[in-house]
Amino acid sequence: MLETKVKRYQYGNPFQTDAVVIKLPIYHEPLQKLSHENGNFIYKLEKGAAVYGLGESVRGINKRGWFYTSFCTDDDMHTENKHALYGSHNFLICNESQPFGIFIDYPGKVHFDIGYTDLDTLMIEPEMMNLDLYLIEGQNVLEIIQTFRTLIGQSYIPPKWAFGYQQSRWSYETADEIREVAYHFKKHEIPLDSIYLDIDYMQNLKDFTVDPHKFPDFENLVAELKEEGIHLIPIIDAGVKAEAGYEIYEEGIKNGYFIKNEDGTPFEAAVWPGKVHFPDFLNKETRTWFGMKYKTLIDKGIEGFWNDMNEPSIFYTPNAMKQAMDSVLENKEKNIDLGLFFGIKDQFSNILNKPEYFKEMYHDTDQGFVCHHEVHNLYGYNMTRAAAEAFDVIKEERMLLFSRASSTGMHRFSGIWTGDNRSWWSHLLLNIKMMPSLNMCGYLYSGADIGGFSDNTTEDLLTRWLQFGIFTPLMRNHTAKYTRAQEPYRFKSMAVMRHFICLRYVLVNHLYSEYMKACLSNTLYFKALAFEYSDDISKEIEDQLLLGDGLMIAPIYEQNKTGRVVYFPEEMLCVRFTTEKTYQLELMKQGHHYVSMPIDQLVIFIRPNHLLILNDEAQNVSQLDNHQIEIIAHVQTTCEGRYYEDNGLVKNPKLEDGLSQININIENNEVGTQWQKSKNSQLNHVTYTVYDAKQNEIFIHTENL
Amino acid sequence: MLETKVKRYQYGNPFQTDAVVIKLPIYHEPLQKLSHENGNFIYKLEKGAAVYGLGESVRGINKRGWFYTSFCTDDDMHTENKHALYGSHNFLICNESQPFGIFIDYPGKVHFDIGYTDLDTLMIEPEMMNLDLYLIEGQNVLEIIQTFRTLIGQSYIPPKWAFGYQQSRWSYETADEIREVAYHFKKHEIPLDSIYLDIDYMQNLKDFTVDPHKFPDFENLVAELKEEGIHLIPIIDAGVKAEAGYEIYEEGIKNGYFIKNEDGTPFEAAVWPGKVHFPDFLNKETRTWFGMKYKTLIDKGIEGFWNDMNEPSIFYTPNAMKQAMDSVLENKEKNIDLGLFFGIKDQFSNILNKPEYFKEMYHDTDQGFVCHHEVHNLYGYNMTRAAAEAFDVIKEERMLLFSRASSTGMHRFSGIWTGDNRSWWSHLLLNIKMMPSLNMCGYLYSGADIGGFSDNTTEDLLTRWLQFGIFTPLMRNHTAKYTRAQEPYRFKSMAVMRHFICLRYVLVNHLYSEYMKACLSNTLYFKALAFEYSDDISKEIEDQLLLGDGLMIAPIYEQNKTGRVVYFPEEMLCVRFTTEKTYQLELMKQGHHYVSMPIDQLVIFIRPNHLLILNDEAQNVSQLDNHQIEIIAHVQTTCEGRYYEDNGLVKNPKLEDGLSQININIENNEVGTQWQKSKNSQLNHVTYTVYDAKQNEIFIHTENL
Repeated sequence: MLETKVKRYQYGNPFQTDAVVIKLPIYHEPLQKLSHENGNFIYKLEKGAAVYGLGESVRGINKRGWFYTSFCTDDDMHTENKHALYGSHNFLICNESQPFGIFIDYPGKVHFDIGYTDLDTLMIEPEMMNLDLYLIEGQNVLEIIQTFRTLIGQSYIPPKWAFGYQQSRWSYETADEIREVAYHFKKHEIPLDSIYLDIDYMQNLKDFTVDPHKFPDFENLVAELKEEGIHLIPIIDAGVKAEAGYEIYEEGIKNGYFIKNEDGTPFEAAVWPGKVHFPDFLNKETRTWFGMKYKTLIDKGIEGFWNDMNEPSIFYTPNAMKQAMDSVLENKEKNIDLGLFFGIKDQFSNILNKPEYFKEMYHDTDQGFVCHHEVHNLYGYNMTRAAAEAFDVIKEERMLLFSRASSTGMHRFSGIWTGDNRSWWSHLLLNIKMMPSLNMCGYLYSGADIGGFSDNTTEDLLTRWLQFGIFTPLMRNHTAKYTRAQEPYRFKSMAVMRHFICLRYVLVNHLYSEYMKACLSNTLYFKALAFEYSDDISKEIEDQLLLGDGLMIAPIYEQNKTGRVVYFPEEMLCVRFTTEKTYQLELMKQGHHYVSMPIDQLVIFIRPNHLLILNDEAQNVSQLDNHQIEIIAHVQTTCEGRYYEDNGLVKNPKLEDGLSQININIENNEVGTQWQKSKNSQLNHVTYTVYDAKQNEIFIHTENL
Repeated sequence: MLETKVKRYQYGNPFQTDAVVIKLPIYHEPLQKLSHENGNFIYKLEKGAAVYGLGESVRGINKRGWFYTSFCTDDDMHTENKHALYGSHNFLICNESQPFGIFIDYPGKVHFDIGYTDLDTLMIEPEMMNLDLYLIEGQNVLEIIQTFRTLIGQSYIPPKWAFGYQQSRWSYETADEIREVAYHFKKHEIPLDSIYLDIDYMQNLKDFTVDPHKFPDFENLVAELKEEGIHLIPIIDAGVKAEAGYEIYEEGIKNGYFIKNEDGTPFEAAVWPGKVHFPDFLNKETRTWFGMKYKTLIDKGIEGFWNDMNEPSIFYTPNAMKQAMDSVLENKEKNIDLGLFFGIKDQFSNILNKPEYFKEMYHDTDQGFVCHHEVHNLYGYNMTRAAAEAFDVIKEERMLLFSRASSTGMHRFSGIWTGDNRSWWSHLLLNIKMMPSLNMCGYLYSGADIGGFSDNTTEDLLTRWLQFGIFTPLMRNHTAKYTRAQEPYRFKSMAVMRHFICLRYVLVNHLYSEYMKACLSNTLYFKALAFEYSDDISKEIEDQLLLGDGLMIAPIYEQNKTGRVVYFPEEMLCVRFTTEKTYQLELMKQGHHYVSMPIDQLVIFIRPNHLLILNDEAQNVSQLDNHQIEIIAHVQTTCEGRYYEDNGLVKNPKLEDGLSQININIENNEVGTQWQKSKNSQLNHVTYTVYDAKQNEIFIHTENL
């Protein structure tokens, strides 16, 4: 089936990345669509055609007009001039009269010049010609995405509680601080499902340790929070502190589990713990060894992790530091001129994450002894895979797991967050634009650091970002050290922020259901309007998104705004939440409308013949009352909805095996429901609020199941 | 008259900045509006009230929600987290039910916390309480601005040729390169009025020298270009190279003209030329001395300059470099841990423009021996004043002059460009938003580096920026070393770029006339919609501008867009230029409309009862045919226009003294014109294209004068 839509071409001797799960035969006919010149793949783009994809990247949903580099990079700036961010996702679609997709299965550096050098030319430049290239055909963008997603396998499904609101900062440093955060949330009745531990919980920044002074009763703390429905999520960094007597260091050295220099000795670098070695996650044995280390914390009650610094990020190597210091020593007696000044200064200024470091690192894999530079994008992926594969052994239930670095393939094992962003309005907009691209590439469980990581947030930015964050599967507020505190209870407008966090819980069953649908059918949770609508205006809209089957959102992402213009490609029903429990309905005709969006209101749009599911609010996901839901339906002719439900923990949920599917059918003021309830389903009461667009009437109906 | 609207309060013993030109008596009653606590001025803002002003700053037209620092700073990032840019403009307006303006006449550091710490509180924190505070009342924002502008004196008027298109880059390094640029413009018939010389034209980066090898026939080059209507504009940097035998250095040392250390010895720092001293521009004698140095180049035919690096920008001081190098020497034998690593690294990473440098610098002024830090914002201002005051002596005609650093007062002597920006779409948007704020503070002759200075531009960004640049008084394309070349003829879509540059010339008489009006009446060339319209939607629009009396523009500032939504606060006439010579007219009803704006078309909107003046295109301003103009009038009832004309060179142009004023009166299809033509006026033929909105009819009429 897939073979009729996908052609696999092979060049050279590719390193096996396990990005794809369906092994297609290699197609030996000449390359179609693209031409292949001087080691590059070239394509003449149609005038005005959009190019979508590349997952975690700067700029817009339509990538045309810039060049991008696929090479996982630790960089928090995310400004327009950048080429690479934390992830590497080599899938793109040219949305032309005959749309097609391209996937470059190659773990090293690839440049994508998408109409930068020449407006009308797409040029793909892999650094080495050892790769699989997949050409994917389809009727339209959505079909091509579904085919690609089928090729790379089903996306990661986190536990349902991971859809609750999550609070983080670098760092809550002590058990007392964690308790204080939990206390404030409870006191102010702000719902909460998780609190995060950033690096300072560790003993001297050693992975899988807990500082016994700061956290003298760690297991009690975990249990105590769990009583309140709150999960504690520790960070794990890629670098293992080089410290005699530290078990993981000793074992790694003894067994040769660390990345090596070319001569086979362990490669040394400095990151947060000071001197570290990096586990060789491209080695299967290392993965098994390191993955099982997570058990130390799982045994203490931990149910989720975030993997960080796994591009890997490197502050310096002893060599680079020596070189920089030598440049001073050599010149200390000299008259420093401007050239020499910049020469010395830049040795230090540019010492973080020098690309040269990756050329000194080697992996011992069953595909050979390979230079890290050539397989760089697999590192964070395989760190995370190590954890996920171990979880399969350790734990019966789903674990929460997400990573900073990523590449295609890792989406089956975990989510990602979008890395260290900044407290900028433009990064809220980037967050909005990035989501459909990430979904295309298999990353459904994702979100940005709400409020912004670096720099100081502002009250209105945080509030607006929370409004958008309501819709991202990962809804986490996180900020850096030395920045303004971002917990909602720190602000005058706490009540407004609480309102939006509560709304997340009112919507959580709907969002979770849409997430499950997207995972199970290899479709999108977030879509650009251009993926569904073909009119000229929809094609260019990048600040509104479709969510799942039936919703559209149009976030505010500018300061001092109390409304914005929204484009409606078709008639939609506007649901305006003035409190968690009360909302107003208004039919919006096709076209542009200015929609008032004061900072304390949330607005969601329902597409024709689609519905929105609400549940009662709760202080965390475990307290949700799943017995009853309310359905708001926008009926033009016949409204068909599908709703998924499960216990939120079963692995590989399947219909009739833990997962309930509920099909809803509403025709004007007749409601018909078909239920395929699994034995776990708790649902027994539904209220329908049906907006009949033809009659311009609202009728309400309840049903006991 | 002014005294009824402005109250001047004095605190401590202010340093005289010459920011204001009208010396008001000091008001001794208690401070109104603001409260004065702990050395801060505090005001409770009305909910939702906008705050305008602060000239050259990051973020929006409405400054509410962030904190800004008035302290001239060399920083090309201009991202949302920044507090200070190149200029210091301490004027703001709280647009409340009783709007009022505040001007802090203080040359040192001032923080403006505009609802950042607390959403509803404006807090102004001057570093020292030696200042004049002006409270300005008025019926509305425009009246308050006009009062403030009257207080600070009439803005700089450049020669008319400075309204032509200008081409720059860091650097055209040789006479041949300059000739090549001019050649390409001529060959491709792209109009051009100026080419810029960045630092590399100098001999070893010494001010007022010309490298004899790179420019063996400088005077011929200047003359030759002038023949073609092109002006050569050299840069002058603030720092004077410390080099024995270099006249300016020798004279400065001999006469004590340089900024001093506290002990009276000359302060030394490193900038582009290597070791430099900074002329003490706060000393009148130094100003006269340095100002007259411009004559060296004026004598070679130069008619304009740009003053740069005059915040002043400092790469390092010998002390700071020694400290940084010592930190290496002291630790060379130590085991470098992470703290020590960052300690050493940051000594080098942060060495540029350390704030401490300013505390080591002293000025010898007739108001005493003062630390630079306390009067920092006056430095670029007085460098530029030195030049302007000298030009008054040297030259009979207007000179082009603009500066990077600025503060209030300098607006009478020169324009500014908005400093080193980046090739980012967000900087195009920032450019749009910054213009009304700059105008408020007296800076009318201004513009950004079109296409962006740092980073690589893209073809569409440059094209869209040129479209907006058509309207900025300074229309200069400029980029940095090591970036993609930005001359229009480098691109495939050169014809489109030429089209827009030609349109600049078709509009130049209109723009120049609006500029003159704004200068002579202390009004705005660029206005936010909120300054004119009081409806709720206009209040929040920051991506459309009003230009002069009668126009509105709505630029595209996003990649891959072919149109945008425009808000019309009232009915307007859309003029769509499909070529330089052909346009279509369409009436736009009040409200939001999606307006198609393909990349090769320019769209301008004429307000009701206003007009747009076109002239024939020309290859440069000197070739303009000023005998005939075409007027497009949007008549609802009675259209009244006023058009200024002069020879573009006379200093202090006044009505009946070099300046012509033409009043135009159109009532439905009756055209009446009143002329106050000076003897210099060339105008003798007018074509009227009148769009009668009531009748929905266009009629054309010609008049010979």
